[in-house]
Amino acid sequence: MLGNFSYSNPTKLYFGEDSLNYLNEELPKYGKNVQLAYGGGSIKKNGIYDKVMEILKANGKNVFEDGGVMPNPTVEKLYEGVKIAREHKVDLILAVGGGSVCDYAKAVSISVHCEEDPWEKYYLRMEDVDNEIIPVGCVLTMVGTGSEMNGGSVITNHETKLKIGHVFGENVFPKFSILNPTFTFTLPKYQMTAGFFDIMSHILEQYFSGEDDSTSDYIMEGLLKSLIHSSRTAIKNPADYEARSNIMWIATWALNTLVAKGKTTDWEVHMIGQSIGAYTNATHGMTLSAVSLPYYRFLLPYGLQKFKRYAVNVWDVNPDGKTDEETAEEGLSCMESYMKELGLVMNIRELGVTEEMLPGIADGTFVMEGGYKVLTHDDIITILKKSM
Amino acid sequence: MLGNFSYSNPTKLYFGEDSLNYLNEELPKYGKNVQLAYGGGSIKKNGIYDKVMEILKANGKNVFEDGGVMPNPTVEKLYEGVKIAREHKVDLILAVGGGSVCDYAKAVSISVHCEEDPWEKYYLRMEDVDNEIIPVGCVLTMVGTGSEMNGGSVITNHETKLKIGHVFGENVFPKFSILNPTFTFTLPKYQMTAGFFDIMSHILEQYFSGEDDSTSDYIMEGLLKSLIHSSRTAIKNPADYEARSNIMWIATWALNTLVAKGKTTDWEVHMIGQSIGAYTNATHGMTLSAVSLPYYRFLLPYGLQKFKRYAVNVWDVNPDGKTDEETAEEGLSCMESYMKELGLVMNIRELGVTEEMLPGIADGTFVMEGGYKVLTHDDIITILKKSM
Repeated sequence: MLGNFSYSNPTKLYFGEDSLNYLNEELPKYGKNVQLAYGGGSIKKNGIYDKVMEILKANGKNVFEDGGVMPNPTVEKLYEGVKIAREHKVDLILAVGGGSVCDYAKAVSISVHCEEDPWEKYYLRMEDVDNEIIPVGCVLTMVGTGSEMNGGSVITNHETKLKIGHVFGENVFPKFSILNPTFTFTLPKYQMTAGFFDIMSHILEQYFSGEDDSTSDYIMEGLLKSLIHSSRTAIKNPADYEARSNIMWIATWALNTLVAKGKTTDWEVHMIGQSIGAYTNATHGMTLSAVSLPYYRFLLPYGLQKFKRYAVNVWDVNPDGKTDEETAEEGLSCMESYMKELGLVMNIRELGVTEEMLPGIADGTFVMEGGYKVLTHDDIITILKKSM
Repeated sequence: MLGNFSYSNPTKLYFGEDSLNYLNEELPKYGKNVQLAYGGGSIKKNGIYDKVMEILKANGKNVFEDGGVMPNPTVEKLYEGVKIAREHKVDLILAVGGGSVCDYAKAVSISVHCEEDPWEKYYLRMEDVDNEIIPVGCVLTMVGTGSEMNGGSVITNHETKLKIGHVFGENVFPKFSILNPTFTFTLPKYQMTAGFFDIMSHILEQYFSGEDDSTSDYIMEGLLKSLIHSSRTAIKNPADYEARSNIMWIATWALNTLVAKGKTTDWEVHMIGQSIGAYTNATHGMTLSAVSLPYYRFLLPYGLQKFKRYAVNVWDVNPDGKTDEETAEEGLSCMESYMKELGLVMNIRELGVTEEMLPGIADGTFVMEGGYKVLTHDDIITILKKSM
């Protein structure tokens, strides 16, 4: 564990099949006006909307609807949500959905009392939040982003083709999150597996960085092995409670700050994926799956020992009689087989990327400094071409 | 992940070589009167006492000394500490030491405003705390118990030969804990390795329970592998920052409630160890090391698959061509070699236990129900005899 750091996480989690009932414990802590943020309406079909509304009404809340949050929440939708919150002086924003809805709820929560344009202040200029923040609670229906227990919030501006994620401090974390694994059972397979890979990518972005021996890496190896095991079960039987509950828990702990403590981290796959997302509006997890292997194969010579360790400790590759390169490459081959087994998107063409878009995507990719190589513009083009 | 549960942990951690400086951020949050709890005075020799006092004074605090907290804090000492806190109306109890000092500080914190005898109410009757609690902060100088980020508090009554641990709720958790790995460098080897095994035992007590596939078990395997690796480095070079910092972090996460979430747990080794501790006043971690292997060998047939998994995933035992029993036993043999390498106490005779004490120790052992077998009185005697 390197460096000096502080750790605390203020989000309270309620987990399990009956966890929605805990909403009755949380709601009385907040005022009467609740902004209910949700996505395209699947929660109306599967009954979660009705259950949540019933609890809100039973607790005497005035509910202000804020549906239609899109998979990559836009800056226009953010302005809309802020308007609702201001008009009705909301006391709590309750996000019911996946990571996008949670991200969006956080974006609204910090923007309501922001006197400037929040997109410019909090996303373009990446400033800390210095105004009042409306509390956020989450009822998770889709796993992957970890947004339910962190300060992350990604907003997309289609006009300028920028998809920017800002990781805010603890004051922006949700106050509580309700994690009911059964709420994730009805998700279509494409979204489900995209979420699984999003989780894997969150772990790998933190794992593939640094040369030191850190307990965080061992914890991540455990999370990866559990994820691989449970996701293989879940694609066969999406209603396997044991598997889905493990995955839900892994998603939260993969990105709630713990495993990054005392470590450097990378996040370049997310930077490339977000730039692709701004051009194509593709599902986030699939942008990550489509570029991960080309990126890691490009990176392998620069972080050889870690890639070897990954092969042995996560994919059970036997290193006997092999060069380090061979062992490391075998690890990535195992990962490739696993990704195909899950049916993930393995190239960016399938996401709608054309040759002509590549320079723009590369231009829109933020270059991080914590990975095993700081990418040049040419490196990004090379990786994107290999991803086609 | 099984069952319904909530998770949150209010303790703020400050980690690293310079983490004592963060005391300047925490102290202003509390009133002027600080009770300074510490042990036998080693902090006066290694300079930590002076550094803490300097910061306390710089923050304008009135310091009330409460030294002499013994390795197994007694009920008499608890009464003494409560007297100090009441007399000086203390606003904060600052524990500077290891787990015993933290445990003690928590015991005092809940007893100051308790109108009954706190030993009877909180340890014998195990009641929840319903009175005001004095806030506790910790500066850790010894790792093992995880007391810096949980609600555990063990108090010993030598008169009745009872050593009782009560795991209190979040309101009893320390408000903040300062974890500086360099503060642990000067600890004598016996205490250091006892602490290492205490950590291992905390993990194993939670690992060896349940038949389901739980992410918590994968996390624990990661923690165990990191602990085994770093402790082997630390016994060769106690001032290896990387190793000691990893161990400090593992100790906290082994017992701050995370890895027990969604799991059943055992804790029988601790129950036997605590009963031995009440008879001998032996170092806690060594009571655990002396009984662990006899206990786990006794338990092996009842939890065969988990012991096999432990062998393969933690000790890298190759199961090919072996029966499950052989693989599982080989795992425990690896554990035995490791324990001998660390120089741990491997039998209870060395801790001062005599044949005559065995029935009393067995009588004083609480029987838990989460392990792979609920022990009978005879079972406990059998395990104790094997530990002689």
